[in-house]
Amino acid sequence: MEVTQVTPMKDLNPLFGNEAFMGHEQVVFCNDEETGLKAIIGIHSTTLGPALGGTRMWKYNNEMEALRDVLRLSRGMTFKASISGLNLGGGKAVIIGDASKDKTDDLMRRFGKFVDTLGGNYITAEDVGINTHDMEMVKSQTDHVTGIPESMGGSGDPSPVTAYGVYMGMKASAMYKWGTDKLEGKVVAVQGIGHVGENLVKHLTEEGAKVYINDINEDRLQTVSKEFGAEIIYGDGIYDLDMDIYAPCALGATVNDVTLQRLKCAIISGAANNQLADEQIHGKAVMEKGIIYAPDFLINAGGLINVYSELHGYNRDEALRKTENIYDTTLQILKKSETEGVTTHQAALSIAQKRVADHK
Amino acid sequence: MEVTQVTPMKDLNPLFGNEAFMGHEQVVFCNDEETGLKAIIGIHSTTLGPALGGTRMWKYNNEMEALRDVLRLSRGMTFKASISGLNLGGGKAVIIGDASKDKTDDLMRRFGKFVDTLGGNYITAEDVGINTHDMEMVKSQTDHVTGIPESMGGSGDPSPVTAYGVYMGMKASAMYKWGTDKLEGKVVAVQGIGHVGENLVKHLTEEGAKVYINDINEDRLQTVSKEFGAEIIYGDGIYDLDMDIYAPCALGATVNDVTLQRLKCAIISGAANNQLADEQIHGKAVMEKGIIYAPDFLINAGGLINVYSELHGYNRDEALRKTENIYDTTLQILKKSETEGVTTHQAALSIAQKRVADHK
Repeated sequence: MEVTQVTPMKDLNPLFGNEAFMGHEQVVFCNDEETGLKAIIGIHSTTLGPALGGTRMWKYNNEMEALRDVLRLSRGMTFKASISGLNLGGGKAVIIGDASKDKTDDLMRRFGKFVDTLGGNYITAEDVGINTHDMEMVKSQTDHVTGIPESMGGSGDPSPVTAYGVYMGMKASAMYKWGTDKLEGKVVAVQGIGHVGENLVKHLTEEGAKVYINDINEDRLQTVSKEFGAEIIYGDGIYDLDMDIYAPCALGATVNDVTLQRLKCAIISGAANNQLADEQIHGKAVMEKGIIYAPDFLINAGGLINVYSELHGYNRDEALRKTENIYDTTLQILKKSETEGVTTHQAALSIAQKRVADHK
Repeated sequence: MEVTQVTPMKDLNPLFGNEAFMGHEQVVFCNDEETGLKAIIGIHSTTLGPALGGTRMWKYNNEMEALRDVLRLSRGMTFKASISGLNLGGGKAVIIGDASKDKTDDLMRRFGKFVDTLGGNYITAEDVGINTHDMEMVKSQTDHVTGIPESMGGSGDPSPVTAYGVYMGMKASAMYKWGTDKLEGKVVAVQGIGHVGENLVKHLTEEGAKVYINDINEDRLQTVSKEFGAEIIYGDGIYDLDMDIYAPCALGATVNDVTLQRLKCAIISGAANNQLADEQIHGKAVMEKGIIYAPDFLINAGGLINVYSELHGYNRDEALRKTENIYDTTLQILKKSETEGVTTHQAALSIAQKRVADHK
């Protein structure tokens, strides 16, 4: 959501000419005067299947900010679905507005109607600023919704599946680095212990890893520490910890110029989105430091795999089984990265892109 | 398609913030790298029914030109359908490119696929730069096409229906002005004798009007003159003619500052789109000169009424019967204009807008 300089040429070609546009199939601007709804739906690709991606509500300063955000995110969904071997395309929606003030049931229902006009070409789900009640409103207008609660006939909380995928990516990274995927005795720092982080801590402690937890919520720290016997580490002391594995599961961009001076881990493998502040620069930097970086959009795809299963008659065991594939894919990518001398992010991206291209 | 100054605020809000946006429901940007297709579909309103409007292919200099064009045209379609009493909304599509160089069958087919993803929310038809063969390509991918040739199961050439509507609007204007709708002996100048103009000349000469014809095509002038006994008037001499009715059936914006100094008619009533160079300024100017102006978007709606009929099992008699209503609507608008002291264009627009608002 950064503000970039706009040149006159871009002004006259704000969409097709937008650098974030990058091969999108369709971008749909939706407007409803009665409810005040202003939304943008980005459909990057439907080559592998319907474009799936969550709806975010955010108080963007202007349309161009909203547009860049939705384009960037929908493109990311294409590659996430592709690398996960799902028959899904990439899409995303943003609603321009303050979720705490501008959101009404009517607005969400109207949004659902717009989603419905796309006839299943775009399938939506929850994202930042949107809650379960909102999705109920959307669902009242369209069937093209996923990631809904069990009470509404959906698959419920996807966090355990996401955490399991991250755990698989971490074990594969361990195998690549140390020749064994056993995490017993390894020091792992989990940053952010929301639902996903907590489930990851559970897997790690069960296997006998030495787990540190870090969060801004003191209550959560105490609860999780007590339940799993994890050690608390406060503030940004986590970056100086003598650890084997760093697992960012909260904020993005924690792998940056500053933290890379301090991080002493052998592996970075977590659930957070966009862990690398700059994919190119910091992707290269971790490689040069000999750190194994398991690409975030690959290993945190459990949630997407879960909602994909929901579309085809939900079965949690099957979702977990599919999520297990993250282990093999991570190994494949780490090998490709080393063989070709490219970052792991780039290796994952090119495999994802190739799968889409081959399908055309 | 004029270029307007863009200010920084507009740059950052090119769509929802665009002055041409004016209450659009949906604007869909479609892109296909393989065929080079770049299209914008504007859906102004679906309140009264699916948004119907033609597809235009044009070599716009930039996206903002294309966007302004499609937004302006799709909004116009809403009011045209509404004032005509049709259960249709307003839409329009533009394809960015040179119809003589960039158009391929694959490109048109891909466009048809995009139209299909909108699930009937938008129905397309021919417009500038698009021909019957192109529509065949579109039709191969979607059912949401209308205005197709008889050979393809459609309603064929709509020109006779359009001409009949203009004739009805002209007769109603005569009734309002002179207390009789008989055009026998009246001097009518028809500017532009394409299919619509020619059919109008036919009605007028059959009724015994004294018809002048004007066109840039000498062959057409000779043919139509011979067939219907119409008198040829060359060049812009038409604006100085001592006539009762001026019927612009070719270019738009022929009612402007220059021609209004010269026009001596009592009625302006023709088939051309956007006859008033500026709806406000020249709408008022004709009113002040005591000229009856039958709003173009109302009286040239026969073509739209015709394709509307096509959607519901085509019957030309029924299409003509519905087109006959243009007579009553024109009278209603001329009265409203006089009673409320507003231009006829404004009177028609407010009736059209009210019908949409009442339907919400």
